[in-house]
Amino acid sequence: MSMNISEKNHEEYMKKACDLSELSVKRGGGPFGAVIINKETGEIIGKGHNMVTIKKDPTQHAEMVAISDACHTLESIDLSGCVLYTSCEPCPMCLAASYWAHIDRIYFGNTKEDAARIGFDDSFIYDEIKKSVEERSIKMERMGEDMAAIAFDEWTLKDDKVRY
Amino acid sequence: MSMNISEKNHEEYMKKACDLSELSVKRGGGPFGAVIINKETGEIIGKGHNMVTIKKDPTQHAEMVAISDACHTLESIDLSGCVLYTSCEPCPMCLAASYWAHIDRIYFGNTKEDAARIGFDDSFIYDEIKKSVEERSIKMERMGEDMAAIAFDEWTLKDDKVRY
Repeated sequence: MSMNISEKNHEEYMKKACDLSELSVKRGGGPFGAVIINKETGEIIGKGHNMVTIKKDPTQHAEMVAISDACHTLESIDLSGCVLYTSCEPCPMCLAASYWAHIDRIYFGNTKEDAARIGFDDSFIYDEIKKSVEERSIKMERMGEDMAAIAFDEWTLKDDKVRY
Repeated sequence: MSMNISEKNHEEYMKKACDLSELSVKRGGGPFGAVIINKETGEIIGKGHNMVTIKKDPTQHAEMVAISDACHTLESIDLSGCVLYTSCEPCPMCLAASYWAHIDRIYFGNTKEDAARIGFDDSFIYDEIKKSVEERSIKMERMGEDMAAIAFDEWTLKDDKVRY
């Protein structure tokens, strides 16, 4: 691998993600775990397991929890130079969050097809996101564009805005 | 519209989402706001504005905050029968979260092209998600499938699992 992570550590990071996925099942969560490491130091800076049913919050996937945790550790929204190890291929929500966080690289254990086989239908959502607004199963419609433009204009004109 | 929302309320919900997007700019967040309503009662059950730079957490988009808030209100991960009004077309993270939450319908003000023009590159992430694992700018690789399979097997065998 082209980074400062030994082959032994590489396996251990995935093992930790998988351990978290097993812990999640024991705790009543979905079977998913994730860790985020700083690839320069090798340090684990974020971790999480699925908390959807535990917290009654559908946004609390393992990778989302780990990304929030890593950003909290670094006090930064920028995880450039960080690697995500996740026990399962990220769903579109978690993959998009990885892009927003500028994660460098993702290693995953189970595939989205494996997930679909045990009842987690990431594949369906991947298919929906590829569709146009008009074709999706969630009905989507534009409205109120004049009202909505105001905040965009205010943002554009704001001198001290924090871009991301 | 085929739901119990008057045209006047319909405009007012979007106005509230847009008001939140303006409040966000004032508070130093990105120019995005969202509300979620129960379409039977017309009640607003969730709301939020962008908190990415405020909380230093890239997952804290307006729609994500609103979805978490609505689920907290209902004490449920299932937002069937609910409508999302958002000041901007959801990014893939927020759209996927809407699918996981079983949101019925989405109204949006600005488009993702409008967002790209002021520096929020949802369009890039939409394009990336459509690509195969091998083609994406974030390098993704499978590993440790035997380790990862354990929690999936434990989940499958668990009698008292809470599906979602």
